[in-house]
Amino acid sequence: MDIYDIAIIGTGPAGVSAAITAKVREKSVLLIGETKLSSKMRKAKEILNWPGAYGVSGEELADRLHDHLAAMGVNVTEDRITAVYDMGGSFTLQGKSGEMYTARTVILAMGVVSAKSIPGEDELLGSGVSYCATCDAPLYRGKTAAVIAWSPEEEREARFLAGIASKVWYLPMYKGDVSFDADNIAVIGGVPTAIERGRLITDQGTYDADGVFVLRESVAPAKLIYGLDTDGAHVVVDRDMQTSVKGVFACGDITGRPYQYIKAAGEGNVCALSCVKYLD
Amino acid sequence: MDIYDIAIIGTGPAGVSAAITAKVREKSVLLIGETKLSSKMRKAKEILNWPGAYGVSGEELADRLHDHLAAMGVNVTEDRITAVYDMGGSFTLQGKSGEMYTARTVILAMGVVSAKSIPGEDELLGSGVSYCATCDAPLYRGKTAAVIAWSPEEEREARFLAGIASKVWYLPMYKGDVSFDADNIAVIGGVPTAIERGRLITDQGTYDADGVFVLRESVAPAKLIYGLDTDGAHVVVDRDMQTSVKGVFACGDITGRPYQYIKAAGEGNVCALSCVKYLD
Repeated sequence: MDIYDIAIIGTGPAGVSAAITAKVREKSVLLIGETKLSSKMRKAKEILNWPGAYGVSGEELADRLHDHLAAMGVNVTEDRITAVYDMGGSFTLQGKSGEMYTARTVILAMGVVSAKSIPGEDELLGSGVSYCATCDAPLYRGKTAAVIAWSPEEEREARFLAGIASKVWYLPMYKGDVSFDADNIAVIGGVPTAIERGRLITDQGTYDADGVFVLRESVAPAKLIYGLDTDGAHVVVDRDMQTSVKGVFACGDITGRPYQYIKAAGEGNVCALSCVKYLD
Repeated sequence: MDIYDIAIIGTGPAGVSAAITAKVREKSVLLIGETKLSSKMRKAKEILNWPGAYGVSGEELADRLHDHLAAMGVNVTEDRITAVYDMGGSFTLQGKSGEMYTARTVILAMGVVSAKSIPGEDELLGSGVSYCATCDAPLYRGKTAAVIAWSPEEEREARFLAGIASKVWYLPMYKGDVSFDADNIAVIGGVPTAIERGRLITDQGTYDADGVFVLRESVAPAKLIYGLDTDGAHVVVDRDMQTSVKGVFACGDITGRPYQYIKAAGEGNVCALSCVKYLD
């Protein structure tokens, strides 16, 4: 397995800027996120304060960042990281795809995740609650499971899970019609109010489930890495963008306000250079 | 006299980014520095890590920043600030031009100044040592003065001073021939080793001078504002870019390494938004 110098989680302006500077400094870079880069940025109609590009659209700026990466030979690995393990001297990153990655340093640049935990979620994480269907589905062979999903993409995960589990409850947190061909998947409504051992409770009912898969757009940073100091939804960093975990750095919205593209890009640069310093 | 919401000292990427975001937030902005923007940036042959502009030249990036300011109606006031006075609730900025400016907040974005003080300089500042010929020349009517100059631009200052003082010693710290038409200006050589009351001492001689004008490219930040915490050549800031003086913020190289364009631009953005918060 390849060991990268720097693994960067997130392909918004923070992650892209970090990747570019890391590459200039001749480090091997694993950039993980959306191949089309930040879909949030692409929705911005007009950006007034990206210096040197007055009034640029989010679409256009994302394209320019994409071209910059391409010109430097940096590829994006399309995946979502569900856990990071500190192995002492290196880190192992678990992808939603089932893939595992290894790197000497990690940069957290996946934006701010504002979702609050569901009561019971934090307590049962790892023993009944999971953030990755591909990784943990085998644990529920012939058993019952529930999926709480924030994106239609997770319907594929539910189908995969239904091929292994005996019964799957699917609770969509997004709008739009949802239906499955598989007989053993049932779509349920309402909002989750609690996760208890062996069941999911919503404001509309109680569902037996040996495991509950909580599939948000991103995993809250404090749950991603053990020992990471956070302040609400934000990761605590110093002026060098170092977090409380040695070898793990953070940049962009995840480090706190202001939530601004150019602030994120600037912090990405500092992160990359702090990694270089740490690696040397 | 106009009172600006925000006075920004420096027209590199930090100052320009701060000005742009301040303008987006509808604050009145005084941007002071070089009209052609950072001459240091213009010398960069190729910039690899300004995201979205792979391989852009410093000349081209400076032009793009210039166009951005123009598109938003932000003008650059060509001047150099030699002192900032905290007036309680507002700040008065003294320009090398002799002009005075007033603003409710100040952003320091003039880059890093590495020059060490000359022995005696700090002790005699304000009582025999001055950083602004235009401001303090009248104090030396009929007296003797010395000018230590880091740029050929200061020859104009020396000529002005010679019209008031009886005798001017001119010590150039830059390369190239220097000559004056005025009889009462003498060009001297060597490097300054000390300033004492009534005289300038170099490694080549001792010169009687009631006042000594020390004209560097920039004034060291600790000497610009009373009470500003510094760490060597850098201004100490927190994550909001606030300095130890309430209402004074700093961004870019002046806040410390890494000395990078995109880091500076990101910090400029944060500075502007911290000013907005402070003003509200």
